Amino acid sequence: MAPNSVKIPLGDYVFKRIVSLGVHSVFGVPGDFNLSFLECLYDVPEIHWYGTCNELNGAYAADGYSRKIGNKFGVLATTMGVGELSAMNGICGSFAEYVPILHIVGTTPISAKKNGLANHHLITSMCPLQKNDHYVYQKMAATVSCNVTSIEDLREAPSQIDALIRDILTEKKPGYLYIPCDLATAPVDATNLTTIPGASFYETQPRGSAHVINEIADLALEKIYKATKPCVLGDGLVDRFGMTNQLRQFVERTKLPNCSNPMGKSLLDEQNDYYVGDFIGNESAKQVAAYVRSCDLLLHFGNFDNEVNSGHFSIHNGFEDKEDNGKSLIIFNHRYIRIDSQVFDGYSIEDILPAMLAKLDISKVPNVEKPNVNASIERVPSSTPISETDVLEEIQHLLQPGDTLVVETGSILYGIPDIKLPSNCKLISQPFYLSIGMGLPCSFGASVAKKELNEQGRLILLEGDGAAQMTIQELANYNRPGLSPLIILLNNDGYTVERAIKGPTREYNDIRPNWKWGQIFDTFGLKNYRCKKVIQLEDMHNTLEEFGRDNSCARMVEVVLGKLDAPWRVNKMLDGYK
Amino acid sequence: MAPNSVKIPLGDYVFKRIVSLGVHSVFGVPGDFNLSFLECLYDVPEIHWYGTCNELNGAYAADGYSRKIGNKFGVLATTMGVGELSAMNGICGSFAEYVPILHIVGTTPISAKKNGLANHHLITSMCPLQKNDHYVYQKMAATVSCNVTSIEDLREAPSQIDALIRDILTEKKPGYLYIPCDLATAPVDATNLTTIPGASFYETQPRGSAHVINEIADLALEKIYKATKPCVLGDGLVDRFGMTNQLRQFVERTKLPNCSNPMGKSLLDEQNDYYVGDFIGNESAKQVAAYVRSCDLLLHFGNFDNEVNSGHFSIHNGFEDKEDNGKSLIIFNHRYIRIDSQVFDGYSIEDILPAMLAKLDISKVPNVEKPNVNASIERVPSSTPISETDVLEEIQHLLQPGDTLVVETGSILYGIPDIKLPSNCKLISQPFYLSIGMGLPCSFGASVAKKELNEQGRLILLEGDGAAQMTIQELANYNRPGLSPLIILLNNDGYTVERAIKGPTREYNDIRPNWKWGQIFDTFGLKNYRCKKVIQLEDMHNTLEEFGRDNSCARMVEVVLGKLDAPWRVNKMLDGYK
Repeated sequence: MAPNSVKIPLGDYVFKRIVSLGVHSVFGVPGDFNLSFLECLYDVPEIHWYGTCNELNGAYAADGYSRKIGNKFGVLATTMGVGELSAMNGICGSFAEYVPILHIVGTTPISAKKNGLANHHLITSMCPLQKNDHYVYQKMAATVSCNVTSIEDLREAPSQIDALIRDILTEKKPGYLYIPCDLATAPVDATNLTTIPGASFYETQPRGSAHVINEIADLALEKIYKATKPCVLGDGLVDRFGMTNQLRQFVERTKLPNCSNPMGKSLLDEQNDYYVGDFIGNESAKQVAAYVRSCDLLLHFGNFDNEVNSGHFSIHNGFEDKEDNGKSLIIFNHRYIRIDSQVFDGYSIEDILPAMLAKLDISKVPNVEKPNVNASIERVPSSTPISETDVLEEIQHLLQPGDTLVVETGSILYGIPDIKLPSNCKLISQPFYLSIGMGLPCSFGASVAKKELNEQGRLILLEGDGAAQMTIQELANYNRPGLSPLIILLNNDGYTVERAIKGPTREYNDIRPNWKWGQIFDTFGLKNYRCKKVIQLEDMHNTLEEFGRDNSCARMVEVVLGKLDAPWRVNKMLDGYK
Repeated sequence: MAPNSVKIPLGDYVFKRIVSLGVHSVFGVPGDFNLSFLECLYDVPEIHWYGTCNELNGAYAADGYSRKIGNKFGVLATTMGVGELSAMNGICGSFAEYVPILHIVGTTPISAKKNGLANHHLITSMCPLQKNDHYVYQKMAATVSCNVTSIEDLREAPSQIDALIRDILTEKKPGYLYIPCDLATAPVDATNLTTIPGASFYETQPRGSAHVINEIADLALEKIYKATKPCVLGDGLVDRFGMTNQLRQFVERTKLPNCSNPMGKSLLDEQNDYYVGDFIGNESAKQVAAYVRSCDLLLHFGNFDNEVNSGHFSIHNGFEDKEDNGKSLIIFNHRYIRIDSQVFDGYSIEDILPAMLAKLDISKVPNVEKPNVNASIERVPSSTPISETDVLEEIQHLLQPGDTLVVETGSILYGIPDIKLPSNCKLISQPFYLSIGMGLPCSFGASVAKKELNEQGRLILLEGDGAAQMTIQELANYNRPGLSPLIILLNNDGYTVERAIKGPTREYNDIRPNWKWGQIFDTFGLKNYRCKKVIQLEDMHNTLEEFGRDNSCARMVEVVLGKLDAPWRVNKMLDGYK
């Protein structure tokens, strides 16, 4: 420590570092072991505290904030054991879907940790004569995070905190910071805050040698130049690794046909002339699949090859080089690049895509006709006046540039690929981890990020009643100035997405019946809100028009749907499950 | 497998085994990977399914069921990842407080597990070129359970399931059963169900040699015979290890002064003539502490020496043999017996207490006068017409024999030791793990157990508004015939128990404001209920009298309290925190 160094409380260091990185919101729940840490909030006025009703909701909210704020990270504060474990599923979802989160957990005092005392919120050893392990939850956290930092030595703390945040930003994964309650306000050296500016955390270093990076970029470009009909596929990790603008540039400059898959949806401008539609292998709309599979080169940017995102692993069908059909596949991952059978392990889209942009010779790019694929939504009849297909068409009509659309896990999620988004319309969903109940608190977090970004567009949340019951209390958090979601609540009496798999009429797929959705805002203390229940198509249309125009308060449109009604893709997808 | 063996679906085996053990209720939430398992519910009509709004609530409910049903276990069913991790904090609480739970998790198909496919609900490897670990969550579960059983081979399944349940019953801890979705309805040998009856699972084998067990019992009895004023302390593990009746017998036959601590409360009959009061070391009512510490022998049965349960580790003060003050301490744990400095590791109260009862010579037991300790509740003034002390006095008045009182974690919990319970009145709380929000779903689970036991007494839930917001949706589960809780909701505008520690007026201790508690039952679909908000003392008294008499429907009394008002013990306890 430098002799003239300034010392500040440890908690102040954490909050000031967060602010230096452009993050101004912290979500969480107070608990005995994090109160002294939370006290430091009041030393750093640039931080806003958003208490959530419980910790799982807090984790979902931090995830939504992180997804919406864009290439920064979300912050969650909980207390040891009861708090952090309640949040575990939310954090695991962030880990699964590459959403960077700093999860700060207040723990037992350092002396209690050393003595192994049976403090509350702990679990004791199976043998009561043994000491108790205060690190037991930290060990569990290691599974769902890229870095677990436990503050034990104040001299190390500032550098450890900085290193933790660097890891979170590099890996786009959650990281844990454990702060013993008796160290939260202890003094630490503040020098790093001035010598290492927050902006430097966002400067990435190339992965691998410049020589090989150039070689890979050349190889990829050569493949493009030689192809007759290449197609760009924008996938989720493009967004997560901050490459959205570059990929948009690439598409604009090359004028190549382009598409996105569920996790990539909304990162490309779907209004561009060369946008084909949403490509999910065998689970695409037929016309889209036919077009993409007629191409001879698939450029898969930011790939995340998981079950739902890849049409049950069918997304590369026909492009795999083993098929010797004259077709080619290039995969741009954050950890490897694959050009047909050649794998460049350790190289990243973060370096290759910029290199390709720098080297791009437009004159050599094949001239491809505009795709002009018009895929109408395949209609599924319903037992009720309104079907989920109708809802999808209405959403298509409702959406405007600048809107943020949060779609909860549920049957309707599988209709979203059939919607063509307006420009600058952000979609947030959880297509891989698929934790039902995430959408509502996530939309709250996204709303907070929108407010922080001073964005004008609407926040629209689309969710089913089963999902809503899981996390309903977080609606109460819309009782804040400047947050005014439009919630489209799909009332279909249960877990329709599960009914589609098995037990369509079984009790286990029922939810608690007869909720009065229209009075929930009132019950939860909102004073300024609008609610309407719609059963008829025209009523839904008019209400969404009217509520859509009024962005002054929280609004809910309850849409009554059939128990077994779902978009066409649900049945298509579930063929393998039955 | 015997040649003539009968085969039944694996899921049927699980449910039939559960039924054979006297358990008839299963809590949980459906998910893609447990639907085929849940289908087996319909083959075993003796099982009732109780779907909860989310998995954490389901875990709390299974915990409440387990605590109330008495020396059996609770059952929870969730789906891999999203479900089981949401439940993690609830299961951890059961682990912490020795509450036996069978947690059944439906997983990805066995082939997907072997191939390491990136199925939904999973997290993928940090390096995307590696296989994915389908056992990743099972490894986490090991921390909060006594046994993790993963079905991989159908021939082994029946014996593995039986062994798992034996471990749960022996250790009084949660155990996990992972069932791949494609094996849930596959045939397994049903022979065990007839050859090994459920009752045999409850027959315990002595831990350690009969010779030593007798020796320990003799040594303990000798200590009692030699003492002039022994005192019995009934602690939580007496209840958990099924020794409540034996301890009550012991107290009745010896006519020794007796007391209980927070986790032991309600296991002794507090109306017996020799009941001293609740003893929590330094955190007892003064008169109770003075009496107990005037005794020369403390018999601590079923001890669980953790922070809150032991008055911050002061419960043995004055009895520890190192103090050489002529006082003695005997500890009867499930894993060891300690007689002053002599420790018998591996011996259990389960064997020693019955041996002591068998050998007891009443003529040698010292004759102790009835304690007659009259500890009135120390009053704390409030800024509102009603204080928490008033609530405690009202509860004292309200309670009747046969009632079950569930007390949520919060400030009021620390007033409960000042209440003298009627005979046969069961208290349920979570004094060690202290997970706020547990009480409401726990009370639902306890209600289900009460119904299963065909008990007539009332279910009374006492909880704060902050706790209620965490798990409020589970109120909707009272929309079932035969469940009619009386809920006393303490409206004090936030986390009063946290305000008492730090930040009394800080925003981080606020909850979402202005909830209309009185209309929550209606919003959540209950048709038959009563609600009243009370601000004045007399109104509280009359309403509780009236609502207390009417056990025909769910009732809520909202009591308006001061933000900073708490029972006297809260400040006493928190001295160490400030």
